[in-house]
Amino acid sequence: MEDHNNETTVDAHEAPENNKKQNGNDVGDAWGTGRTSNSHQIARMPVERFGSEYNMNHKNRGYALIFNHEYFDVPSLKARSGTAADCDNLVNTLQNLHFNVRVFKDLKYRDMLKEVEAVAGMDHSDNDCICIAILSHGELGYIYAREGQYKLDSIWSYFTANRCPSLAGKPKLFFVQACQGDQLDGGITMMPDRTETDSGSTGLSYKIPIHADFLIAYSTIPGFYSWRNTTKGSWFMQSLCYELNQHGKKYDLLTLLTFVCRRVAIDFESNTPDTPSMHQQKQIPCITTMMTRLLRFNDK
Amino acid sequence: MEDHNNETTVDAHEAPENNKKQNGNDVGDAWGTGRTSNSHQIARMPVERFGSEYNMNHKNRGYALIFNHEYFDVPSLKARSGTAADCDNLVNTLQNLHFNVRVFKDLKYRDMLKEVEAVAGMDHSDNDCICIAILSHGELGYIYAREGQYKLDSIWSYFTANRCPSLAGKPKLFFVQACQGDQLDGGITMMPDRTETDSGSTGLSYKIPIHADFLIAYSTIPGFYSWRNTTKGSWFMQSLCYELNQHGKKYDLLTLLTFVCRRVAIDFESNTPDTPSMHQQKQIPCITTMMTRLLRFNDK
Repeated sequence: MEDHNNETTVDAHEAPENNKKQNGNDVGDAWGTGRTSNSHQIARMPVERFGSEYNMNHKNRGYALIFNHEYFDVPSLKARSGTAADCDNLVNTLQNLHFNVRVFKDLKYRDMLKEVEAVAGMDHSDNDCICIAILSHGELGYIYAREGQYKLDSIWSYFTANRCPSLAGKPKLFFVQACQGDQLDGGITMMPDRTETDSGSTGLSYKIPIHADFLIAYSTIPGFYSWRNTTKGSWFMQSLCYELNQHGKKYDLLTLLTFVCRRVAIDFESNTPDTPSMHQQKQIPCITTMMTRLLRFNDK
Repeated sequence: MEDHNNETTVDAHEAPENNKKQNGNDVGDAWGTGRTSNSHQIARMPVERFGSEYNMNHKNRGYALIFNHEYFDVPSLKARSGTAADCDNLVNTLQNLHFNVRVFKDLKYRDMLKEVEAVAGMDHSDNDCICIAILSHGELGYIYAREGQYKLDSIWSYFTANRCPSLAGKPKLFFVQACQGDQLDGGITMMPDRTETDSGSTGLSYKIPIHADFLIAYSTIPGFYSWRNTTKGSWFMQSLCYELNQHGKKYDLLTLLTFVCRRVAIDFESNTPDTPSMHQQKQIPCITTMMTRLLRFNDK
């Protein structure tokens, strides 16, 4: 069985589409077999395949929904004083960025879903993107609506490219102000380094959270399969190495990883015709960052 | 009670350090009270407080550990053919970026921890950063070592700024090639748009994963408290709005969000002297991206 879908041995910008013969099989890095999603849907292309930036030149920027929660029906949840300041701030900010902003105050979960479903069902063909902001209480894995808790994925799942094709290939932005548990980060104090002082540092000490400056680049999103070609290696590692080799000293790391995501998402597709349920499947990496500055690998 | 730690009403680049008096209390967006971490640790400052890029000019780039898993003692786990190609590729890539690369093949979990602990215990003062890559099988929430599964946080937690102060304020990079479950993404086909064709598109159709192009910006990391000033609003929303307002049309979104993380991490500290366990605590936002291109909010 041959995989003719991987193009990573040539610069994809010049590669003919999906017609390179290549050895090796496509397999997953899970112990079980995969569960297929629905497939073969079609959407309009908002940006040329090799474009490095999203197309932000549609007629409209798009909708921004703000779910602002101040008061709750759950007795243990205090009123969130200060959230009105957040909400006003965010409305102005998003309007300045040309979003069509809608604010919803203290909704119950079923009413949130109604609004989300209504917007997901609209035609976004003339819109650049969608933005949803949630200001509420939360704990690990859950966010609170007026009367109870829900999982964030129950909101964003309305906007996957199959369920909302007019937003396919367009940014889907979620901003969440909420706790994710009750742990506290006591921080660590950064003291001026002699070397840094010499090189023009202001020399003021400052404190940072102990969890700052981490970056975790996962080959696939939670719950999903990760594909590996038995000869060429995994789609993610092939793409990561390619981008780091080609542009590693030119762009900052998050820009590079964005291009790794594009490469994995667009250039690869599983080729397992003998196992139809696994055939012609796609993958998107998942990058989680707590970095506080840009990272550029200069020359040494 | 006054909070004198928030500086968001002025440009922090010109603000005197932590001496602005401001109304409002600092509270959390959880229903319970917080659990304190150890605090008051001190580390050397690798980069000036307001620097926009990480300092990559130390004597050495730093260590890169690659945990390459091909064979497993768990009968249900197949050999990961193709991982040798990934590993060779990654070794070359990281060496070209001047990392001191160490490869570990098919280690048991306890031996992985030994290596991780040894490296975390080293003095990284002359190093820019650390990089750890894991190539293995996985499922939701777990990665496989030779003999069984573990959670990724058991690896990265060795490198928090309190446990590894010589890496405080420096990038800590984790690259994971592994499944996170058995779900498959059938993708969606992007067909050329008439408008796009007119504007010079090549017009080739392509397929993308239905989960591509999402971005989720969470105010805090999983398990942790998220702080809100009862007058000025939450640290995260204040910072997000500030960066979007000041630089929203200048930088791409991931660059902006990096600066939001810097602002939350460095410019804010809780001020609750009446509740000592909550006092002088820090916060770092958590950005998860599946975006495939750069996002820049242009003018409309």
